[in-house]
Amino acid sequence: MAEKLKKGLFITFEGPEGSGKSTHSRRLSEELKREGYDVIHTAEPGSTPLGKKIRDILLEKEDVRLGGLAELLLFEADRAQHVEEVIRPALDGGEIILCDRFNTATFAYQGYALGMDMDLVETVDRAATGGIRPDLVILLDVEAGTGLARAAAAHSKDRMEKRSHEFHEKVRKGYLAIAGKDPERFKVIKVREEIDETYRLVKEQVKGAIEKYRVR
Amino acid sequence: MAEKLKKGLFITFEGPEGSGKSTHSRRLSEELKREGYDVIHTAEPGSTPLGKKIRDILLEKEDVRLGGLAELLLFEADRAQHVEEVIRPALDGGEIILCDRFNTATFAYQGYALGMDMDLVETVDRAATGGIRPDLVILLDVEAGTGLARAAAAHSKDRMEKRSHEFHEKVRKGYLAIAGKDPERFKVIKVREEIDETYRLVKEQVKGAIEKYRVR
Repeated sequence: MAEKLKKGLFITFEGPEGSGKSTHSRRLSEELKREGYDVIHTAEPGSTPLGKKIRDILLEKEDVRLGGLAELLLFEADRAQHVEEVIRPALDGGEIILCDRFNTATFAYQGYALGMDMDLVETVDRAATGGIRPDLVILLDVEAGTGLARAAAAHSKDRMEKRSHEFHEKVRKGYLAIAGKDPERFKVIKVREEIDETYRLVKEQVKGAIEKYRVR
Repeated sequence: MAEKLKKGLFITFEGPEGSGKSTHSRRLSEELKREGYDVIHTAEPGSTPLGKKIRDILLEKEDVRLGGLAELLLFEADRAQHVEEVIRPALDGGEIILCDRFNTATFAYQGYALGMDMDLVETVDRAATGGIRPDLVILLDVEAGTGLARAAAAHSKDRMEKRSHEFHEKVRKGYLAIAGKDPERFKVIKVREEIDETYRLVKEQVKGAIEKYRVR
């Protein structure tokens, strides 16, 4: 049975490295599809052909110098193309979009952790997104040490993961600070030992958002 | 004999495809070096290791979709790194910087010719450059048709050169409109049949700017 929404629903998954964003968002995507919803699962950076090339530059393991400003602008170039090719069309089509990382990551990583001027970060982001913002942000909160250890077990370190423990602690604090300012849109979920328990909490929040817009 | 300036001097060369920017700026760079000045010759995009990777994306011949916003942000990412690694250190060191294309190109190509909102373009550019702007802009003016024919004779077409004749006419008009608003910093030089004559006019303008800051 096809389930319809009154409007497209844009839900992003955020959190430090190794917090389980993609595990939970993928599982949820499959479950919602089985229930009859139109769902797309996507991620930043790298979800368009252009984005894959930008992602290679941003996360590659070789040492090309990359200043904070250039890093910000590359993430935003990836985002601009992602919005144009994927997110806006899906929103216009009334779909549910589950996206691993979006602009909250930029505010946490480049704003809070790299210490760039937040007005500048927000201005560039607004230009890149055309003002599109998530209806709901699921923030998976985990200690930097725990998350990095999980990420390291899963794959070799990329440019972000190579940054210091202190950097990743700032990312985490940045995320929590942003979420604290907008509790209506941000739902913070502490990552549990038991993965099914974390998933249950994620699903509860997402289902709540969907219910608001479901056509009965 | 070493010639010194009171401050670094930032001179950019602009103009449509095939207007001779790099020919004249390189020749001038050699001549000024022989006269004892500290000169660097540089260009956008692609003058840092990061920039080379961005340039490959921007100008490559394969067909990866690239929207106007992503294009703008990639040019600005290249510029941010160029300013940080090359331009600002040279300015701080009191050098003369001769640069083929800088932000005037972005205003002409992405602003005037692609038709992007100019406030948005200027806002993103200000973020990327940190407000650095050229002391002198040499605008080599040539009809779009003439310039494109020259460029086509020199190499196979990149992404920009593949755009329509109409696009390149808009670029030219955009350049002239920008120059018309700030005649103090912009010097428009009509490209002559005789290359040495064009060069003489370019040199005259650059020498005039140098004289203002030379330590006697």
